[in-house]
Amino acid sequence: MEERLIGKHAVIEAIRSGHTINKVSLQKDLNHQAIRELLSLLDDNRIVYNWVDKAKLDTYGPAHQGVVAFVAATEYAAWQDFAQGGLIVMLDGITDPHNLGAIIRSAYSFGAEGIIIPKRRSASVDAVVHKASAGAASHLPIARVANLGSVLDQLKKRNYWVYGARAHEASDLATIEFAKASVIVIGSEDSGMSGQVEKRCDALFKIETSRFESLNASVAAGISCYAYRLAQKSK
Amino acid sequence: MEERLIGKHAVIEAIRSGHTINKVSLQKDLNHQAIRELLSLLDDNRIVYNWVDKAKLDTYGPAHQGVVAFVAATEYAAWQDFAQGGLIVMLDGITDPHNLGAIIRSAYSFGAEGIIIPKRRSASVDAVVHKASAGAASHLPIARVANLGSVLDQLKKRNYWVYGARAHEASDLATIEFAKASVIVIGSEDSGMSGQVEKRCDALFKIETSRFESLNASVAAGISCYAYRLAQKSK
Repeated sequence: MEERLIGKHAVIEAIRSGHTINKVSLQKDLNHQAIRELLSLLDDNRIVYNWVDKAKLDTYGPAHQGVVAFVAATEYAAWQDFAQGGLIVMLDGITDPHNLGAIIRSAYSFGAEGIIIPKRRSASVDAVVHKASAGAASHLPIARVANLGSVLDQLKKRNYWVYGARAHEASDLATIEFAKASVIVIGSEDSGMSGQVEKRCDALFKIETSRFESLNASVAAGISCYAYRLAQKSK
Repeated sequence: MEERLIGKHAVIEAIRSGHTINKVSLQKDLNHQAIRELLSLLDDNRIVYNWVDKAKLDTYGPAHQGVVAFVAATEYAAWQDFAQGGLIVMLDGITDPHNLGAIIRSAYSFGAEGIIIPKRRSASVDAVVHKASAGAASHLPIARVANLGSVLDQLKKRNYWVYGARAHEASDLATIEFAKASVIVIGSEDSGMSGQVEKRCDALFKIETSRFESLNASVAAGISCYAYRLAQKSK
């Protein structure tokens, strides 16, 4: 499967973030000066490119600025392949790609097995996410599933415990004794977890703060993974 | 003091983020349809606006798209006014406004007294930062100082302890017994703390992870503030 990235800036970003680029097509009569930076990035990274007519690029969409890249489509994993009894981070409705990327980075850093996101109501793993993850999105398996609730049911059958983050009416995170096989669920910034996910949680926790109700979702996820690690160390 | 925001999108963002707007000037012959959203935001938020000649707006800078807003300049605080023996977060070179905003949000949530940033090599507190802070930048005092090292010297005379975050060669964060009067220093994502700041730290800590060397700066700051709070609670 191949995806297309349209426009000079998107392509430059993707190269810089280490995305795998199969090929880049450039418009024949493009001013070389305007794409000098891109050309040197292509050369430095030994990326194949060719020169084509504008009409050809127009078939890929408007506003291409004479630059279209063909990239390897994000390969999502099957959660069954990475669920080996460690930490899984499930994201129920994270739509901001910067947050998604930062969470992938934290989860990877703290040794998670993988990430599970829903097919709907979620940012997908694109070039922005890759960059925000500082490359971790290329290393950590990410599963994209139709129904988070049914996946939780199956994970529980495999002896995972499910812990959901909430803004209030929940236990203090510091008191949670995370099992080794844990799913940490982070809901959306706006509305938290969905009902079908929340009702499957074995425990709900909140990060106690002094003021404010909630932290940025990527900060909350990072602190939760840190607490999981602390709990494992104290065993 | 007044600052100007140039361009439709910047102004819309600023209004949405709750920035205080003194007045908006719109170009007389602007197509009302193109600024319909802006006009209704102005009305909803009871913001004063007037219609002026394009020549007038041109004096404020290019690319104004017919829209210039006059906003209250960010009022920085004096650190002497908020340093009362609690938690201070010092940021040594955070240049990404999203990170700065998220850190302000976390620091505020975890009860910090204030933030100290340097005048140079730092994002300043603008509309993007306000938005990323979810409003906390309007509540938490932020001091902007010429010399972080000399401020640390003065804070140490006031019995503050200084703890610096590092990627390696440092103590495990979980073992740090933060004093009530603490300065937590977070360095830049690229190069960490500067030498003049690092040499003044009473302790250096790292957030132990399983893989990767470093976390996103706003996640690292959030976890550090969380650890400070844990340490206070266990006393």
